[in-house]
Amino acid sequence: MRNVKLTLQYDGTAYAGFQRQPNGLTIQELLEGALSQVHGQPTKIAAAAGRTDAGVHALGQVVNFFTEARVPTERWPLALNRHLPADVVVVEAVEVAADWHARFAAVGKRYRYRLDNGPVPCPVLARYCHHWGRPLALDAMQAAAQRLTGRHDFAAFRSSGGAARTTVRTIHRLEVVTQPRPDGRGEVIDLVVEGDGFLYNMVRIIAGTLLEVGAGRRSLAQVEAALATGERTQAGQTLPAKGLCLEAVYYA
Amino acid sequence: MRNVKLTLQYDGTAYAGFQRQPNGLTIQELLEGALSQVHGQPTKIAAAAGRTDAGVHALGQVVNFFTEARVPTERWPLALNRHLPADVVVVEAVEVAADWHARFAAVGKRYRYRLDNGPVPCPVLARYCHHWGRPLALDAMQAAAQRLTGRHDFAAFRSSGGAARTTVRTIHRLEVVTQPRPDGRGEVIDLVVEGDGFLYNMVRIIAGTLLEVGAGRRSLAQVEAALATGERTQAGQTLPAKGLCLEAVYYA
Repeated sequence: MRNVKLTLQYDGTAYAGFQRQPNGLTIQELLEGALSQVHGQPTKIAAAAGRTDAGVHALGQVVNFFTEARVPTERWPLALNRHLPADVVVVEAVEVAADWHARFAAVGKRYRYRLDNGPVPCPVLARYCHHWGRPLALDAMQAAAQRLTGRHDFAAFRSSGGAARTTVRTIHRLEVVTQPRPDGRGEVIDLVVEGDGFLYNMVRIIAGTLLEVGAGRRSLAQVEAALATGERTQAGQTLPAKGLCLEAVYYA
Repeated sequence: MRNVKLTLQYDGTAYAGFQRQPNGLTIQELLEGALSQVHGQPTKIAAAAGRTDAGVHALGQVVNFFTEARVPTERWPLALNRHLPADVVVVEAVEVAADWHARFAAVGKRYRYRLDNGPVPCPVLARYCHHWGRPLALDAMQAAAQRLTGRHDFAAFRSSGGAARTTVRTIHRLEVVTQPRPDGRGEVIDLVVEGDGFLYNMVRIIAGTLLEVGAGRRSLAQVEAALATGERTQAGQTLPAKGLCLEAVYYA
């Protein structure tokens, strides 16, 4: 039995998230369907690094599966993509040790949350950005991002429904990166966050907090209060899924 | 009667092109539907700068219409966007002289053709890029682009069906602009072309020609032969609509 690590990308717009569930088509279902086609028998993945929610995109989701198929490792992307729709793509396959596990072996992840900060939502950005039509104070957003960087109790930055035992996480990097919108009318503001792990909805709540700080609706003191008290109401709103992308999973 | 110039953007994926036609939903139909809603009576546009084909996108399409409605000019985007889907957006309205015509007054246009040059098509680029999976010689593409720049007879670079009286056009700028793909696996190669006017499918044929030159399937001598002979077979293939975007229309 070989253990194969796959890196996959998807446009999450049409899907009910990564993880298989009864009410809606998921990435896992499509991927396991493709694996089953190639194997000629029902085949499941062993693990996935991140359970992205409905509408969330990925450029670097990682899974692993066990196989006895005589497909050369580097041929797996081609073999699987033949059975996948255009919005779900396997980009890389690597053989890994028998005890390697896509989730347990992960030491960190990078996400990007994209804001379309122009007068009206740009239609070619709308699938991948959350729109905000008023001015944002980037310096205030950067100060709040700086404050959230490091090892903290992020209890205030998670939605109920998460099953994490501890709410302490380390954010290694939280950057506010801007570029002009493709039409020159305003900017695309990317919130890039790298950390050792993330609570349920943590990135979307951090993005909502930074947005509210930029809009002048929330102060740096409130961000500090959110970290200190762990109260969900002290952090910002959960921004929509479509702005979020799982960019990379890191392994030791 | 006021004459109003509108700038609009759309993701063309779902539409049968700009111009109204019996077989499929068009941008013009949606826009005139919105204008009619606001006016409370059937209202048509007077002109559009470019008749983008099915699947082509726009960040800077320009139209004009005549109105007696008591809507302040700067409120037209808001008033119309309420009646438009998210993939068709009015971004600007300006009052113009009574004899101003969106097509006849145009002195030039800028288009962008996007290539996804990575190992497999990236799903978050797929709506807006044509994928090419093998290496491309950028220097050869740039040399061919240089050769096409200027005033030439572009008869070889048009599809049949165009109604232009002359096939002489001036390309003011034709640039090959690269940036890393968002996942770092390969590059996005943009072909940016600015000119005083374009024949039917001219940009998509120029893009196909540059792609074939980059792939080593067509020589600079052939590009020169295409210009010299005007024979369609001497130029490259017409690339798919989805990679094309009308970025701007220029007025004196």
